[in-house]
Amino acid sequence: MRTVDLIHRKRDGDELSPEEIVYLVEGYTREEIPDYQMSAFLMAVCFTGMTEREITALTNCMLHSGATIDLSSVPGVKVDKHSTGGVGDKTSLIAAPLAAATGVVVPMISGRALGHTGGTLDKLESIPGFRTNLTIDEFQEQLKQLGLAFMGQTPEVAPADGKLYSLRDVTATIESIPLIASSIMSKKLAEGLDGIVLDVKCGTGAFMKKQMDARRLAQAMVTIGRRMDKRIQALITDMNQPLGYAIGNALEVMEASQTLQNAGPVDLTRLSLELAARMIYLGKAAKTLEEAREMAQARLLDGSGYRKFKEVIKTQGGDPRVLDKFELLPNALGAREITSPRAGFVTAIDAEDIGRASAMIGAGRSKKDDVVDPAVGVILEVKVGQRVDAGGVLARLYYTKETGLDEAAGLIEDAFHISSSAGEERALILEVIG
Amino acid sequence: MRTVDLIHRKRDGDELSPEEIVYLVEGYTREEIPDYQMSAFLMAVCFTGMTEREITALTNCMLHSGATIDLSSVPGVKVDKHSTGGVGDKTSLIAAPLAAATGVVVPMISGRALGHTGGTLDKLESIPGFRTNLTIDEFQEQLKQLGLAFMGQTPEVAPADGKLYSLRDVTATIESIPLIASSIMSKKLAEGLDGIVLDVKCGTGAFMKKQMDARRLAQAMVTIGRRMDKRIQALITDMNQPLGYAIGNALEVMEASQTLQNAGPVDLTRLSLELAARMIYLGKAAKTLEEAREMAQARLLDGSGYRKFKEVIKTQGGDPRVLDKFELLPNALGAREITSPRAGFVTAIDAEDIGRASAMIGAGRSKKDDVVDPAVGVILEVKVGQRVDAGGVLARLYYTKETGLDEAAGLIEDAFHISSSAGEERALILEVIG
Repeated sequence: MRTVDLIHRKRDGDELSPEEIVYLVEGYTREEIPDYQMSAFLMAVCFTGMTEREITALTNCMLHSGATIDLSSVPGVKVDKHSTGGVGDKTSLIAAPLAAATGVVVPMISGRALGHTGGTLDKLESIPGFRTNLTIDEFQEQLKQLGLAFMGQTPEVAPADGKLYSLRDVTATIESIPLIASSIMSKKLAEGLDGIVLDVKCGTGAFMKKQMDARRLAQAMVTIGRRMDKRIQALITDMNQPLGYAIGNALEVMEASQTLQNAGPVDLTRLSLELAARMIYLGKAAKTLEEAREMAQARLLDGSGYRKFKEVIKTQGGDPRVLDKFELLPNALGAREITSPRAGFVTAIDAEDIGRASAMIGAGRSKKDDVVDPAVGVILEVKVGQRVDAGGVLARLYYTKETGLDEAAGLIEDAFHISSSAGEERALILEVIG
Repeated sequence: MRTVDLIHRKRDGDELSPEEIVYLVEGYTREEIPDYQMSAFLMAVCFTGMTEREITALTNCMLHSGATIDLSSVPGVKVDKHSTGGVGDKTSLIAAPLAAATGVVVPMISGRALGHTGGTLDKLESIPGFRTNLTIDEFQEQLKQLGLAFMGQTPEVAPADGKLYSLRDVTATIESIPLIASSIMSKKLAEGLDGIVLDVKCGTGAFMKKQMDARRLAQAMVTIGRRMDKRIQALITDMNQPLGYAIGNALEVMEASQTLQNAGPVDLTRLSLELAARMIYLGKAAKTLEEAREMAQARLLDGSGYRKFKEVIKTQGGDPRVLDKFELLPNALGAREITSPRAGFVTAIDAEDIGRASAMIGAGRSKKDDVVDPAVGVILEVKVGQRVDAGGVLARLYYTKETGLDEAAGLIEDAFHISSSAGEERALILEVIG
């Protein structure tokens, strides 16, 4: 088998056999196949795609390229939730405790903020003392005890994916549905899960701008999951405006707390409940989706999701009082109001611009090793469909340093589309796949 | 300017500016841009192509990446001939002396055999004593004196092309018309030429299997040449059977000598005369193409082309007597007959198979540093359209070692298509571009 011949066949649109995919990925991981051949192969994949059999072989190969997490000692059905990345998306902090409060085991392995999107780990780490670098043993113990634990990805899991992702990042080969799907799924499937709920974001603030692409990605991931005998469903959800009002790490923890106390924004509450319901259903704590929805709702109303989150914070070394006393969270030093240049209806809020503005003042990262400022971010004052007066406040920027502030403020102002008539209302949950 | 953004734009089918092409090629040549980014870019080009402006920028940039040959001290119009590579193609040894005999200056910078195709340098080096490693000074001197000199490419010319070609070779990015066209033209344009005659081979034995691809390649090269103010024409010629009867280095020198004495095969004579006529016309030694054709024919009939070749051989250190006394050329030790399994008409002779068989017994190279055996090769006994009896000889394999002989013989037998009825006659010169 010669690597150049495999690249050639993929370039010509041929299907490679599972053995050939393994040859490429293992050879690359062992550094027998050089970067320049792999990047040519990846670019060919961007154009010719991959068959289901190829995607499954690729996922399997990356999944077995490193350590897998064995959760067989933890009783119960294990269900995780994964989002493809959004702005203001703090649903993990809400849906996971709600699902865990019904007895589903939720091993949450999360990522960090990158680019204009936020990351669950960064949000949690804004809570003073909160540790996300659990050992596998601690993770297992906490899952047995509470049914929910949050930790970061370990480099031992799916190292082939890490190596491939780094190469894709610098060779413009990120945007390929088979490559994205296998990257996400190889990591998720290495976590010893029984079920997965996927939240595929779609719109200006998402990686997938078009619903058709989001659907194809969702379908690819659901297919991989099914082929690996996992219970799996994907929601395609709107990211044409940020989710909720808060963007920024500590700010989002506050909003998550309010939402778990049934005092959160309507859109965030709705999506979190639906994700929780799907986790409960896939986790077999309910016989029907309808029953699962009722359970999720009940856990919100009776405060047991909220209490579960408090317990988790305490067990992972954080100060659980932050959920009531927001002043215990890192606080910004100043706030700048962004006002509307004219009266009208908000017809769109470009979520990518809001995410970029937020990252610009320190809430996110442009490079992997940037340090995040937990205190800063944006609070929207109005959302799509609402009316605003000329000079009315659109949003507030919470900052600790003046650097980048003007540029961020300009971005936020531009992100708001104000029109004389209210636009059509947009659905939050666009589709369910699986 | 970020390399990854340029790759991304090329992937999306955008046109890059000349400055951006220069950034990529110069950055790569200086090793500031790594192989893995360039190979991803090249693969994207394979799918999205390049505009005329991009191809010209790429050619210009590679052309100026190293030394160029200055022939301004050599009086006269300089015209070279370039073939995209064929089997049994010894036209350079015939057309160049014919053109030079009319006063056109022919600075022939040629390549070596690779894969199933032959190379002019290897053919010339089968002549005992013949030196192709001339210095630029020697080259210039000989051109002044004889109007014709043969030399090999120097690594100082278009080094960017050499570096890119090596990368393309291992990343399945060879077959891209813009990349092929700019690679050929950057080297040709570095030679200080006024005109170029291109022979774009098309068919089973050629790199371009389809006439449409050959036409696109020819058009791309003619466009580049025009944009650089060169007189340029391209012939698209058939390579669905070897040219002439001889394949192999010394064997081809013998056939070239016969042809220059007007005793060569019809197809080889015809194409050589047409190429010579185009060189004469572009070299302004004739006012019309018709006049140029008459001049080429006259130089064949009066033996002045033959005498020119003898002078060149002598000046470059070779023994000119080889053109009359073939026993002075390296001779094979044995010959094996390949016979026809049945009676019928030869409808095709797969030139690639013949080329591969010939290379297999030592006439060619599978890797760049393989050593060529000048004595070995194949002599066809019949060509397309001819009748053969059962058991009649199709070809003879001339060998010096038994290694690979059986396999080569099998390939040659398979290369001949024998049918009960003669097929349609095929044109040798398919199209003229420019």
